[in-house]
Amino acid sequence: MTTLRELPELVALGGSRHLVRIPPETDVPLTPRVRQLIDTPEFRRLREIGQLGLVSLVYPAANHTRFEHSLGVYRMALLFLDRLADNGRFASTIEPKDAERFLVAALLHDLGHWPFCHPIEDIQLSKIPTHELFANSFLLEGEIADTLRDEWDLQPRQVMELLSGKPRDRGTRILRSLLSGPIDVDKMDYLMRDSLHAGVPYGRNFDQSRLIQSLTLNEMGDGLAITDKGKTAAEMMVFARYVMFSEVYWHHAVRAATAMLQRAFLMLHASLDIDALFRMTERSMIETMLKASGDGPAGELLDGLFGPTRRLYKRVAQYSLFQSPQIYQLLARKPYPWLVRCAENFAAVASTALSKVVAPHEVLFDAPPVELEVEFRIEICFPKENCYRNLEDISPVVKTLAREQFDDYVKRVRIFAHPRLAKDLRSLGRLPDLIAEAAAMAN
Amino acid sequence: MTTLRELPELVALGGSRHLVRIPPETDVPLTPRVRQLIDTPEFRRLREIGQLGLVSLVYPAANHTRFEHSLGVYRMALLFLDRLADNGRFASTIEPKDAERFLVAALLHDLGHWPFCHPIEDIQLSKIPTHELFANSFLLEGEIADTLRDEWDLQPRQVMELLSGKPRDRGTRILRSLLSGPIDVDKMDYLMRDSLHAGVPYGRNFDQSRLIQSLTLNEMGDGLAITDKGKTAAEMMVFARYVMFSEVYWHHAVRAATAMLQRAFLMLHASLDIDALFRMTERSMIETMLKASGDGPAGELLDGLFGPTRRLYKRVAQYSLFQSPQIYQLLARKPYPWLVRCAENFAAVASTALSKVVAPHEVLFDAPPVELEVEFRIEICFPKENCYRNLEDISPVVKTLAREQFDDYVKRVRIFAHPRLAKDLRSLGRLPDLIAEAAAMAN
Amino acid sequence: MTTLRELPELVALGGSRHLVRIPPETDVPLTPRVRQLIDTPEFRRLREIGQLGLVSLVYPAANHTRFEHSLGVYRMALLFLDRLADNGRFASTIEPKDAERFLVAALLHDLGHWPFCHPIEDIQLSKIPTHELFANSFLLEGEIADTLRDEWDLQPRQVMELLSGKPRDRGTRILRSLLSGPIDVDKMDYLMRDSLHAGVPYGRNFDQSRLIQSLTLNEMGDGLAITDKGKTAAEMMVFARYVMFSEVYWHHAVRAATAMLQRAFLMLHASLDIDALFRMTERSMIETMLKASGDGPAGELLDGLFGPTRRLYKRVAQYSLFQSPQIYQLLARKPYPWLVRCAENFAAVASTALSKVVAPHEVLFDAPPVELEVEFRIEICFPKENCYRNLEDISPVVKTLAREQFDDYVKRVRIFAHPRLAKDLRSLGRLPDLIAEAAAMAN
Amino acid sequence: MTTLRELPELVALGGSRHLVRIPPETDVPLTPRVRQLIDTPEFRRLREIGQLGLVSLVYPAANHTRFEHSLGVYRMALLFLDRLADNGRFASTIEPKDAERFLVAALLHDLGHWPFCHPIEDIQLSKIPTHELFANSFLLEGEIADTLRDEWDLQPRQVMELLSGKPRDRGTRILRSLLSGPIDVDKMDYLMRDSLHAGVPYGRNFDQSRLIQSLTLNEMGDGLAITDKGKTAAEMMVFARYVMFSEVYWHHAVRAATAMLQRAFLMLHASLDIDALFRMTERSMIETMLKASGDGPAGELLDGLFGPTRRLYKRVAQYSLFQSPQIYQLLARKPYPWLVRCAENFAAVASTALSKVVAPHEVLFDAPPVELEVEFRIEICFPKENCYRNLEDISPVVKTLAREQFDDYVKRVRIFAHPRLAKDLRSLGRLPDLIAEAAAMAN
Repeated sequence: MTTLRELPELVALGGSRHLVRIPPETDVPLTPRVRQLIDTPEFRRLREIGQLGLVSLVYPAANHTRFEHSLGVYRMALLFLDRLADNGRFASTIEPKDAERFLVAALLHDLGHWPFCHPIEDIQLSKIPTHELFANSFLLEGEIADTLRDEWDLQPRQVMELLSGKPRDRGTRILRSLLSGPIDVDKMDYLMRDSLHAGVPYGRNFDQSRLIQSLTLNEMGDGLAITDKGKTAAEMMVFARYVMFSEVYWHHAVRAATAMLQRAFLMLHASLDIDALFRMTERSMIETMLKASGDGPAGELLDGLFGPTRRLYKRVAQYSLFQSPQIYQLLARKPYPWLVRCAENFAAVASTALSKVVAPHEVLFDAPPVELEVEFRIEICFPKENCYRNLEDISPVVKTLAREQFDDYVKRVRIFAHPRLAKDLRSLGRLPDLIAEAAAMAN
Repeated sequence: MTTLRELPELVALGGSRHLVRIPPETDVPLTPRVRQLIDTPEFRRLREIGQLGLVSLVYPAANHTRFEHSLGVYRMALLFLDRLADNGRFASTIEPKDAERFLVAALLHDLGHWPFCHPIEDIQLSKIPTHELFANSFLLEGEIADTLRDEWDLQPRQVMELLSGKPRDRGTRILRSLLSGPIDVDKMDYLMRDSLHAGVPYGRNFDQSRLIQSLTLNEMGDGLAITDKGKTAAEMMVFARYVMFSEVYWHHAVRAATAMLQRAFLMLHASLDIDALFRMTERSMIETMLKASGDGPAGELLDGLFGPTRRLYKRVAQYSLFQSPQIYQLLARKPYPWLVRCAENFAAVASTALSKVVAPHEVLFDAPPVELEVEFRIEICFPKENCYRNLEDISPVVKTLAREQFDDYVKRVRIFAHPRLAKDLRSLGRLPDLIAEAAAMAN
Repeated sequence: MTTLRELPELVALGGSRHLVRIPPETDVPLTPRVRQLIDTPEFRRLREIGQLGLVSLVYPAANHTRFEHSLGVYRMALLFLDRLADNGRFASTIEPKDAERFLVAALLHDLGHWPFCHPIEDIQLSKIPTHELFANSFLLEGEIADTLRDEWDLQPRQVMELLSGKPRDRGTRILRSLLSGPIDVDKMDYLMRDSLHAGVPYGRNFDQSRLIQSLTLNEMGDGLAITDKGKTAAEMMVFARYVMFSEVYWHHAVRAATAMLQRAFLMLHASLDIDALFRMTERSMIETMLKASGDGPAGELLDGLFGPTRRLYKRVAQYSLFQSPQIYQLLARKPYPWLVRCAENFAAVASTALSKVVAPHEVLFDAPPVELEVEFRIEICFPKENCYRNLEDISPVVKTLAREQFDDYVKRVRIFAHPRLAKDLRSLGRLPDLIAEAAAMAN
Repeated sequence: MTTLRELPELVALGGSRHLVRIPPETDVPLTPRVRQLIDTPEFRRLREIGQLGLVSLVYPAANHTRFEHSLGVYRMALLFLDRLADNGRFASTIEPKDAERFLVAALLHDLGHWPFCHPIEDIQLSKIPTHELFANSFLLEGEIADTLRDEWDLQPRQVMELLSGKPRDRGTRILRSLLSGPIDVDKMDYLMRDSLHAGVPYGRNFDQSRLIQSLTLNEMGDGLAITDKGKTAAEMMVFARYVMFSEVYWHHAVRAATAMLQRAFLMLHASLDIDALFRMTERSMIETMLKASGDGPAGELLDGLFGPTRRLYKRVAQYSLFQSPQIYQLLARKPYPWLVRCAENFAAVASTALSKVVAPHEVLFDAPPVELEVEFRIEICFPKENCYRNLEDISPVVKTLAREQFDDYVKRVRIFAHPRLAKDLRSLGRLPDLIAEAAAMAN
């Protein structure tokens, strides 16, 4: 094989055979060796894991799967590759073999995702692996590994390293930046797809095709960049991501459900076989957790989420950096166990204030996690001026989104409580004082 | 309450409170008493039942739920009611109480659906209830029944009768025609929704808003009709339904999966607790059937559908009325057990012809079922000429779709076989003769 | 140059430079030599000619230009070529030079269109050229001809022959079938574009991408065909065209306007410099006709269409083959001058019946023209069975649309009259008798 | 009439009669008295005036008319009214008569627009009226005035005052804020419509329906506000407007055309009958200007825009506040005549530098005009906290868009030159110095 464009997967891009259809009216072309990866048990397991987990408790149609998303990401990888094949620096660095490794990595990037992966990772328990590492067990053994070796002539370890290793050479750094960065094949797909299934316009419409047309390499030649023609589209994508966080991913009721799950998992995790649990489908994992929790507090929390009657905790109060800088800074970016202690202290304090029993698990504190998620460092290339600038440096609106709007305004500190308590707690006059008191006790 | 427009559900239609969002960017307004129905265990069970069942094996994103669809149908019912409230004959016949009964019936119309309901009903086993009758157990007892009585002041039996009883009075006949007919709230939603999630354009775009604007009553005043302004939109909807059958519902690979499930269910049903089975979620039902089937032929079939590795039977041959009238008429619209005997005979005959063991369950015959599904009897009203005509009588294209295209061209007779046999069977020269021989033996 | 894919226009298809944007979010790539054709006065004239002429009197947003449409057709030609380049028989017959001729022909196919071209052609006056022939004067001389020779190395006459000559060789027959046939680059664009600008869903959504994927050659290898994967999409396109005729192109108010223009043009044409007129922009042509018509009947008709106050003739009656076979057959497919005589006779007869002066031009008869427009002869290729069948023969719905629905149901015979008369005429009891009488007098 | 909802126009909103269709698949209901306004010569003139003027030289499909836009704004006014009719404070202040005045004002808001209105207003010539004042002559006399008095029982002066007078009472202030403000019926329509016709996704998709659902009154009760549920949608609309400015309205080639027209108009205006000119259609105005300009410099400029061959000036350089604060501040927000002097001085200086004649009109300076266009002062209402906050104060991203991104980044200072000169001028090393020199001479 001599050129990128001759890869069978790229040839299939314009063809009419072996297509699988996914929304929004998108054909994903599957060559036989891609089909074989998709038909493995490891990959088919993604059919039973929801892309958005607890979001579907609030947006009831948002139960699309990681299987569908993975197909979408794979196709996006084809489009990226098809575009960059025209780029001299890219084409002279990336061999067809590297491109195959990239395509496989894009298809398999979520292989290690277990159900409710992100909320559980955010608890930061020492014995919980990252999903990237957890993926390795699926990649390095079993049918996937066999298929990679036999049909793709690829070493599973090479794919693993592209996904989660430290990139050593320039080619790997480039490919990694396509898989994970401010504008990557994953986000290009999920913003649009989550938006579509939730039934909202927010994450679509950032001019995907313009963005793809504008793909190029950065000044160093070791990562993705965007030409100036795509600058506005890049701003639109950053903005779309902000709106998706604001209205969907960090919707207050979604956060209530998330806080309930995290609290229950913390109580249960010691008694669970984590490795077995994380290999289950979403439904089996729920049933396993329900069984393990019995009638205790964890069971009560899980029953409100997954039992026959939905019973989400209610929002008692919320604090953004803007509205209430003091409380926000008191609670945001703190380790999860500390936050739990705070909430339990608060339950005790509130019991006294209300003259009413408030069980420790009936109040939940939710706050932005330790790690910031949002990263917008991407270069814009101005071919006429032959210069590269960071998007943040030339776009005040992106800078504002990155530095202020996202974490300070969207990701708020919130106090949730069992429905039977919410009204009483809301009517407590000096809530901020009680919170401060609970926090002081937790230190 | 004096008028239809004052029903709290209709008032909420334009409001901004208590909205639930579903695709495509649709807000469903939920009044408290609607919310209470939705939060019952009986209704929440629909979250775990796919709208399209086996279709998702072919269109992998089509795993939207009956819960989402039911919300869509409920909203469509609001739109129908809002429109017909302007119609003098409708408004003078349908009391607000009747309208409440209709809204509840629309929301709950799928309550009795069990997973893979339609393929199982098509087997026509004597002990299998229709899903309409099965719904009664959910309607007449439990939280739904309580909520209807306490919050809606409705007798559950009234809702049941509207859904599945024989309509006695004119008002009930009208409301029934909105729930079930050529143009009803159910089809208006599912054509669009199935299309959206499958990722195809076929079932959308039949000018829904024009159709709703054109709603009126028929000449007798006891059923839904369409004014002449909506005639073309009605034709478009009929055509959209044809295309959805052709490309999605009766896609050959979907039919292969359906034939596999039906065959397995026939083998298993005697050993299953049907009533318990039909109350399960989709996932539990699959697991129960897998467990019951063990290593036998039924287990082999189910494993190909739901096991870790997808293994659908392959199409050996297909026959439409047009291409092969003789074989078509030999096999179409026959009782399912007879069709199974045919297939088993064929397996035996083929064993001889191929000099190779063909197990009885390794060949499946799929053919249009006994009952025709397609019905287009709806009147078009010409207000200027003050006359009503049947759509079929004034639209050659609808007549053709109804009489020829649908059952004769879309619903074909198909022979499926285990992948290991398909190629050999295809190469047998005198397939039609062998089929005829197998059919003769079955009589 | 060795292969089709190396044509600079095809290379530009996936690129990001020199794009022009048209709805619906479509980038048209313009190479320098395409840009030069577009910037000629002959082509820029199309900016001032509406695609739908009088339709914009009824759908007020439908004033998109032939310039926009031509860009859309050019892009569709690129997509067709890109797809067929994979087809062995196509690629071995069509040289890159032929493909260039085809692209240019697609871009320039409407060059000879004058404002209100189709209604005027339908009058069938002997001295009116067809727009295909009229195009030759633009093609064979001036800047277009220079650009073709200098930048494309093409003889203008070759392009002309591809557009309107009798195709002599197989290659030309193939290319002609892409430009003009049941599924061609022109219809693929205009159905969608007219639909979009009119604001209706009818002409979109026929699964364009599926249709393009399915392009192939017919059995003889001398014309376009569709593989069986595209059969349903082809049916959808035929159906979409029917709906566009029914709801837009032959909308009764559009036909009223058309009948008014035709009648006025018939009166005026002897006094107009046709060749000069047909080279004008739409606005200039209207002003020239208004000036030529003065205060006479033609002026009255044109003033109702283009004057400061819109005053369309009203529909008095309409007759389809289905409703009124006798009158339909009496008037349909008759020469336009004969139809005018009928209408004038009818005006005289009606004057008597109403005891009121009805001027000859105050009643207009509109009927399907002599030539049938609809042609659906396209082959469907079944690669597995290695056979080709005519779409009509295997699709009852297409056959019905072609033979019955289109001309007999959509294109009706209609009687229009000046608004001051419409009510009186409608109330005349024996309208059919009067029409028959008027027709008898005209023979 | 007792309530807002009983206004015939609001009643017609859900009906099926007298609808006019405009994109995107929108029905505008026309009551007879609305129809009569639309059929006047004054209103029909808007059919011949493009909404976007010179933008169509760059986005060739963007030639939608002010007629279409006015229908869209009228429908948006119906939706606003329908929503606010539920608002107690609104309903108790706004009488049905006021609401009629508002609907008429929305429909007629662009009546005074002449072709290329905004670029000409930006020149700020003393004898040029604003288009709001110019509208008065159309409103206060002629058929519009008659229809308002006879069919609507409204005094034309009342409508005029609502559109352009100083609002004296609370009701008028409220209605004015619906017609003109950060979120008004005009912008809600044009962002979406301009986007649709240009073929770009930028101005659509800001969740219009959510925004309409969130409409309320501000704290003072004298202007429009948005509830917190609509805050994100409001941010999206502000962002959409930014992107439309960046990519469409202030696209560099659009600005080149604008600068050419402004320069030509400045030269010609003394010899034109302005009042007559502004009453013309776009086409007539162009022809009148071409005739007046003869062979001189103005004629050369206009010929490049509207002549048979498009010949836009090329961008020589551009300066944003960010890139080049000095030049930006030197030229931005200066009176237009001063800017012209600068450009002429520059032409002289450049002649010397290039040793080549550069005529005074062959270089054009384009810079943000004196008046800032962007205004985002709208209150967000938090009903739970019972407080109102300015959107800018609680949304860093809106503040950044308003204060920095818009005028400093989108609206750049640009130097355009005749194509024959652009390359030479670009190669002049010390362009900024020459510009500074030219500016110093102009003071």
